[in-house]
Amino acid sequence: MITKNQIKLIKSLRSKKNRKQSGFFVAEGEKIVDELLESDIEAVNIFSISEKYKNLKYYISINSTQLKQISNLKTPNNVLGIFKIPANKEIDFNANIVALEEINDPGNLGTIIRLCDWFGIKNIICSKNSVDCYNPKVVQSSMGSISRVNISYMEFDNLITSVIYDTVAADLNGKSLKEYIFSKNQIIFFGNESNGFSQKVSSKIKNKITIQRYNDNVESLNLASSVAIVLSQLNNQITGK
Amino acid sequence: MITKNQIKLIKSLRSKKNRKQSGFFVAEGEKIVDELLESDIEAVNIFSISEKYKNLKYYISINSTQLKQISNLKTPNNVLGIFKIPANKEIDFNANIVALEEINDPGNLGTIIRLCDWFGIKNIICSKNSVDCYNPKVVQSSMGSISRVNISYMEFDNLITSVIYDTVAADLNGKSLKEYIFSKNQIIFFGNESNGFSQKVSSKIKNKITIQRYNDNVESLNLASSVAIVLSQLNNQITGK
Repeated sequence: MITKNQIKLIKSLRSKKNRKQSGFFVAEGEKIVDELLESDIEAVNIFSISEKYKNLKYYISINSTQLKQISNLKTPNNVLGIFKIPANKEIDFNANIVALEEINDPGNLGTIIRLCDWFGIKNIICSKNSVDCYNPKVVQSSMGSISRVNISYMEFDNLITSVIYDTVAADLNGKSLKEYIFSKNQIIFFGNESNGFSQKVSSKIKNKITIQRYNDNVESLNLASSVAIVLSQLNNQITGK
Repeated sequence: MITKNQIKLIKSLRSKKNRKQSGFFVAEGEKIVDELLESDIEAVNIFSISEKYKNLKYYISINSTQLKQISNLKTPNNVLGIFKIPANKEIDFNANIVALEEINDPGNLGTIIRLCDWFGIKNIICSKNSVDCYNPKVVQSSMGSISRVNISYMEFDNLITSVIYDTVAADLNGKSLKEYIFSKNQIIFFGNESNGFSQKVSSKIKNKITIQRYNDNVESLNLASSVAIVLSQLNNQITGK
């Protein structure tokens, strides 16, 4: 049986403030919940209409009316879990890293987490004012990849001014991506969906790369599309199987 | 002054049936409306809180309460236009074409239209049961590119069985995309977000290409991400500037 307090807790986890206070987040749907259950991330409760989860110690049986009541999805999918937000892992600066300045759209961040997972990027760094990666829409669109990619939030000041890090940014006025030679331990920066980079970040990054376009009338690409293209090119050069 | 009937018409255009009957669709926001006004697409009415549009013959002044009432957006952006759905242009089979089987998500279709525009693909063919390209969410996420890319709907039977067309499909079990050599007049197929291709389509397409992945745990990429990567690779080879 689900309790009133559990329903209240689940709904409260739509807000970042409450996720931070409780240390919990919500994930839904068999695919995503199953991937989280297989990962290092700890489950708190699994609410499901399916008996599939009944041997888990934190399983709570619910009916479909109750699932609808707690779900964030238009079409709830069998199961909703509460999980513990994992502690941040140390960032490996000897590998390629994706850095996102003020990423705003949860669907974009989820898609980018999935792309990083696909292409073997283990760390994403978001600037402090970016969308929270445990936002339910980010978790859903990451399709389970959030359990395998380490996402950190920090001010970009140190990243962009340190001489230790080799930085590159996707930009509309850079060198052709096609001709750019990546190295194995770069931080690859992407700017905000509408406004691109802040002046502060833009001015400090020497290497700017541009995705070659065919049609000059098109002003920009969707952020996640840009990340897909840049990481694919990087993968062709560096990590490619 | 906006009339009750106009409000009713705008709201009715959220449904595909009503768009088909009336021949009209809705677009919002200055960027998209401005691009449509500059294109061949005919405007019917432009409802705006901004005086910027006042010299247009089909301009109707509204206040922000009225804009909120007619808008499909969480944060309405100055202007909403009703436009005429353009007649389909003839498909140029001597150029590369993107074909989408049962594409379902409007945000994905909008992003793919934007990608095709960026990479100079002039024609998209969707299978008949795909999401309608004049769905307001498709129009918004295409960011104006819908005025420059010709989108047709048809059964795929002829496309896949005709010996005239050189077909290639993005698939999870194909040859490496990195090694695939594109030609200048191929139809490049992508399957449904959840289910991929139907057996009928899959069995008829000889060339299958796969985006090389680094992490075998990741089951799939977001559809629009896959299109971004494949078109970028095509552009590197064929159309690249």
